[in-house]
Amino acid sequence: MSVNEQIILAKRPQGMPDESDFTFEEQPLPVPQAGEVLVRTVYLSVDPYMRGRMSDAKSYAKPYEVGEVIAGGAVGQVMESTDPTYREGDYVAGTWGWQRFAAVRTGTLRKVNPDLAPVSTALGVLGMTGLTAYFGLLDIGQPKEGETVVISGAAGAVGMIVGQIAKIKGTRVIGIAGSDEKTKYLTEKLGFDAAINYQTEDLASALAEACPNGVDVYFDNVGGEVSDAVLRLINKNARIPICGQIALYNLEKPDTGPRIQSLLLTNTALMKGFLVGDYANRYNEALHELAEWLRDGNIQYAEHIVDGFEKTIEAFLGLFSGENLGKQLVKVSEEQS
Amino acid sequence: MSVNEQIILAKRPQGMPDESDFTFEEQPLPVPQAGEVLVRTVYLSVDPYMRGRMSDAKSYAKPYEVGEVIAGGAVGQVMESTDPTYREGDYVAGTWGWQRFAAVRTGTLRKVNPDLAPVSTALGVLGMTGLTAYFGLLDIGQPKEGETVVISGAAGAVGMIVGQIAKIKGTRVIGIAGSDEKTKYLTEKLGFDAAINYQTEDLASALAEACPNGVDVYFDNVGGEVSDAVLRLINKNARIPICGQIALYNLEKPDTGPRIQSLLLTNTALMKGFLVGDYANRYNEALHELAEWLRDGNIQYAEHIVDGFEKTIEAFLGLFSGENLGKQLVKVSEEQS
Repeated sequence: MSVNEQIILAKRPQGMPDESDFTFEEQPLPVPQAGEVLVRTVYLSVDPYMRGRMSDAKSYAKPYEVGEVIAGGAVGQVMESTDPTYREGDYVAGTWGWQRFAAVRTGTLRKVNPDLAPVSTALGVLGMTGLTAYFGLLDIGQPKEGETVVISGAAGAVGMIVGQIAKIKGTRVIGIAGSDEKTKYLTEKLGFDAAINYQTEDLASALAEACPNGVDVYFDNVGGEVSDAVLRLINKNARIPICGQIALYNLEKPDTGPRIQSLLLTNTALMKGFLVGDYANRYNEALHELAEWLRDGNIQYAEHIVDGFEKTIEAFLGLFSGENLGKQLVKVSEEQS
Repeated sequence: MSVNEQIILAKRPQGMPDESDFTFEEQPLPVPQAGEVLVRTVYLSVDPYMRGRMSDAKSYAKPYEVGEVIAGGAVGQVMESTDPTYREGDYVAGTWGWQRFAAVRTGTLRKVNPDLAPVSTALGVLGMTGLTAYFGLLDIGQPKEGETVVISGAAGAVGMIVGQIAKIKGTRVIGIAGSDEKTKYLTEKLGFDAAINYQTEDLASALAEACPNGVDVYFDNVGGEVSDAVLRLINKNARIPICGQIALYNLEKPDTGPRIQSLLLTNTALMKGFLVGDYANRYNEALHELAEWLRDGNIQYAEHIVDGFEKTIEAFLGLFSGENLGKQLVKVSEEQS
């Protein structure tokens, strides 16, 4: 217990990352300074956007530095505190990332109530994942009752929350995912009206069949040819929140495809990239509503948890081959009461 | 004077239209029915969007029918009236299109005051052209003082109004156009901060030089490779009104290029196609402000007028080779007092 272990960016990945882009390093257990707590990581989050931060290309988040710990969402328990408002055993969520322990300034943490929901949900439906779904769909997508909402990456952590919120709003919801297990989950467990396996079905004809009234909102997690197919079906005044482009993150040169501006013009459609952090001043309102929906059974969540800090990189890489159904997490240590 | 002449869509153009896609037909002078006036066309407008209506592809305006007169903006004088609110000699603007005379329902007309500005401006800065510039820039582009605004097709009818409104709003304005005559006009006559001739300059490096602080608003009339170059320079929270895609209108198959969603995502940028008709309930407010700016010398307009109804098709086709500086009009008859 006196040794920390961290995952360090060893070099910037070219194309699909592999294990050689990272190193595991041992460090002495950090000592919390004034205003800090020592936390033991219980769950850490691996997310597609992290691939972007491993590059030094201009992006919405600043790049990770080579030689530094990979930062990202994590939930842990306080082991030692210099701040009277945090006590040993308290659960906290923060962004200390891929390490077993961290000394963290309390100003960057939020407390997690283990009686409200499993603490892992602070990284998912009651954390950045849920907030991303909430603001992207409701603020940019603005779904109206009776409209058709299509979601790519629909069985991913964000996509499945988006679809369930879209159902709450009275829309017809179609998910696109990469396996029959996922499409079945979306329709049978989450109430999606239809789901399409883009790996095995002819996407254009399956979409046309699933969207007889066209597409009013396209929540895009994926990009590439999946998006090309959906965009051909958009309606007048369609809204297209761009949440992710996972199909493109590991490409080594810019991808080309049909230019889309004419479709946006002739349909007077809106497309907007967004970043959940731009909505920080509305997090409380959103978390409150998400927690109510969760409590009332209007939304369910799925987690894909791998056990063991040493599996972190494997779990991260699995995001790009679509191994996760729902939120991909790594369990690093046990919860201790 | 007892014969009308009309230009009829003879067949749907494939690629770039030519004279064979149209026929000139003679008809008896129409007789206005109750609620109609007989108008003599003084000016008619040829506009890039008309190319879209000549196709039967889904678009924002319904396609022209083969065998029918090409509809579009026109200004004329009332020759005969069944409506006491319209008198012989009154100037009116409407959409009766490419014909020397028309019987038009007065409900589709607006009166034009010849003492306010030349009546041709009812098709330009004080008509659809000015309104398109106004709403696209101000409602979607939302330029803020000190920001950088780039305009493609900047020496076209809409583009040059956009640039001048952007200057009124205190922004740095860069125009992209297709000849040195045009770029010189933009900087020397209209006060653009810089203008780039995309035909002769290296667009990427010229843009980088002209936009040292990146691009906050890109008002796009053109599309294609010009847009690819501008989009690489957009800033965080950029706004991109899509007004036209003239580079693509005559292509026979969908154009391909770099996919742009990643740029919109990483810059949390907004792109929106728009149609001036969606702002109909705000026309009065906008025309009032445009007229004030015109009166106070804050905006100037340019017209490229060809003389003679028989030159209409030539004038229309000239839009696609960039022959016009400012609003392209055809003068069909003299104003009569």
